[in-house]
Amino acid sequence: MPASTPPDHHLPPVTPTPDIIVTKQVFELASFTTTGGATISQVRVGWESYGALNEARDNAILVTHFFSGNSHAAGKYHSDEAEPGYWNAIIGPGKPLDTNRYCIISSDTLVNLNAKDPNTITTGPATIDPAAGKPYGMSFPIVTIRDFVNVQNALLDHLGIASLQAVVGASMGALQALEWGSACPDRVQRVIAVIGGAEENAFLIGWLELWAAPIRLDPDWNQGDYYGRAEPTRGLVEALKIVSLQASQWPWVDRMFGRAWAEEGKDPRAALEHRFAVEDWLERTAAARAAVCDANHFLYLVKANQLFLIGHGRNVEAGLQAIKAPVLLIASADDLVFPPQRHLRTLKDQLMALGKEVTYTEVITTDLGHLDGIAYIAKAGADIATFLAQSVRAKPLCSRS
Amino acid sequence: MPASTPPDHHLPPVTPTPDIIVTKQVFELASFTTTGGATISQVRVGWESYGALNEARDNAILVTHFFSGNSHAAGKYHSDEAEPGYWNAIIGPGKPLDTNRYCIISSDTLVNLNAKDPNTITTGPATIDPAAGKPYGMSFPIVTIRDFVNVQNALLDHLGIASLQAVVGASMGALQALEWGSACPDRVQRVIAVIGGAEENAFLIGWLELWAAPIRLDPDWNQGDYYGRAEPTRGLVEALKIVSLQASQWPWVDRMFGRAWAEEGKDPRAALEHRFAVEDWLERTAAARAAVCDANHFLYLVKANQLFLIGHGRNVEAGLQAIKAPVLLIASADDLVFPPQRHLRTLKDQLMALGKEVTYTEVITTDLGHLDGIAYIAKAGADIATFLAQSVRAKPLCSRS
Repeated sequence: MPASTPPDHHLPPVTPTPDIIVTKQVFELASFTTTGGATISQVRVGWESYGALNEARDNAILVTHFFSGNSHAAGKYHSDEAEPGYWNAIIGPGKPLDTNRYCIISSDTLVNLNAKDPNTITTGPATIDPAAGKPYGMSFPIVTIRDFVNVQNALLDHLGIASLQAVVGASMGALQALEWGSACPDRVQRVIAVIGGAEENAFLIGWLELWAAPIRLDPDWNQGDYYGRAEPTRGLVEALKIVSLQASQWPWVDRMFGRAWAEEGKDPRAALEHRFAVEDWLERTAAARAAVCDANHFLYLVKANQLFLIGHGRNVEAGLQAIKAPVLLIASADDLVFPPQRHLRTLKDQLMALGKEVTYTEVITTDLGHLDGIAYIAKAGADIATFLAQSVRAKPLCSRS
Repeated sequence: MPASTPPDHHLPPVTPTPDIIVTKQVFELASFTTTGGATISQVRVGWESYGALNEARDNAILVTHFFSGNSHAAGKYHSDEAEPGYWNAIIGPGKPLDTNRYCIISSDTLVNLNAKDPNTITTGPATIDPAAGKPYGMSFPIVTIRDFVNVQNALLDHLGIASLQAVVGASMGALQALEWGSACPDRVQRVIAVIGGAEENAFLIGWLELWAAPIRLDPDWNQGDYYGRAEPTRGLVEALKIVSLQASQWPWVDRMFGRAWAEEGKDPRAALEHRFAVEDWLERTAAARAAVCDANHFLYLVKANQLFLIGHGRNVEAGLQAIKAPVLLIASADDLVFPPQRHLRTLKDQLMALGKEVTYTEVITTDLGHLDGIAYIAKAGADIATFLAQSVRAKPLCSRS
């Protein structure tokens, strides 16, 4: 659930390829019913694609995004854009998610965090409720990872895609990928889950509560009723600071900042407000992110993540049992958000015990902790390509759950 | 830096011994000058002792406390008290810190967090400034771990103790123990540092900032000027929640709470405010702690910890070079606050490279992460006893730095 991707400071050199130029598309649903039974009218989510859909419409791969991300997984909107999408290292012609072969589709989730980013299209508390003529605020219904998957299912129906070659995602994207495998086992031929897990454990549920707490503490949050007035920006910045630090790890942070001061001549020993460079970095990174985020969306995303348990039931084993697709699990050994000992390594054992086809790797581990799954995904490129090359029997279209 | 000690749910059975009955003592200094050059008049800190000082006054061991702790390391104030001091498992007759042999002295630090606890005596922002007739608030000077050590030095002067058999402490107590070894090498014969390190690294400096942030975000904090009015309790509770969770680890938290709900009939799926049991535990634990804590003291403690680098200079190696005493390092392998790979294991290598006498163990590791150093210290009892039994040449009294 990274809030920002640190610079790719020691990625292996990649043969430069021209950036794919992408256009954000909009998918609209006149009405969507959540797993909780609420109806949301005029649901809109953004999506983009890299590579062409073939005539049989059977070469699609779905990419699902992380907590603070959006559908911009690869390419650039304009050739002069500073950075391409977050997984550009593995999406493109000749890359593991090969756009010469596959049509890669990436979609924004409901309650996407980046509600104010013009390149994110989402529906959530900041959206105008057509019935009320003002933003939903806290009247927006609770949504879950299964709801994200169900909206993606509707998008595929709309595109006439009966079956996916794979669903692949990192962090919250991995939760969606795994949920796809369980919820719609006949529509997805392969599942690739990076730095995620099959359920939110108590420890992570607790952390998510701590991430959200600064927003509720900010008086400008005003019980979620802040649209058209002062927004809880301070609380949102503090929330994003926690996400940023927990998504990283000490080897990278120590190497980047050490005990350097934020400002020359302002010794942290001399005054309470004199800071270390790492504190300044946290503040600046989070403030930049907060400018395009919505605080209520953050709270709804936290809830969606806390509620996640594969299969949307009460039992992980039942959720896993439904999976038919082979699964590739890619973990970062030093992940503080989804420690592999608790999540992907355990999941590998659970899937094997159930007789499922599973491959596990920690090849992306460098010094960034959780964020290795974004910044160093290229290190798993060969594993991904090999996994995708394995033949999988054709599956019939499943019905939407 | 634990905020609370979870129940000792699987400690090995210990032969019951009658609890030591202790009395809190007060040490007063008419004037104290901080390392930053500020003068504080009428400094008061609490202390307690277990076991008798011998005639030569050469059998004393100093215990230094952790971030959220105080000087109550062992025994009970009254026989009907629910729980003894935090390290009662290793302090007492026949225990590793053997009160039949040693006089164990434990003292409250400056800016102790538990400013409202009647059994904590400290001087900090909540203390009445004699010159102004009102609490210092943010006019209190910055204090450092070295200042804590210097106050302890003055206490020993007062007690006529020229040389300590050992200084031993966990977490922030380990910082003090190590600082003792460096700042006053001829006054301490052995150093025992548990779940700590020789410096605060960038990652931990960042986390300390995140711990403090909710206090500053609470409008009742009012730039630290809240005495005699509404206090920033909500911010303090959120700060203590982060400390509590980071001081623990997922195996214990998951085992204790799983995905249980906070309240029967209140499914977390049904409403944003319906919580999981782990969230409720964090809230209740932190709220109970906050009742005896002061928010400004929390901020000053955070600063003292962020500033820590052994020897109070700019270079860890120089700080370590000054140490003469043999050092015992006791780490918890899964410590999220002071990961041993970054701290105690690295410190062991640094001390060895400098030709210092050092022993390292991770014997206390169970499933509690950082808190293993408090709750499971008995597992290191034999290591501590062996280390104390090693003869060390008599040292002359050092002068105060």
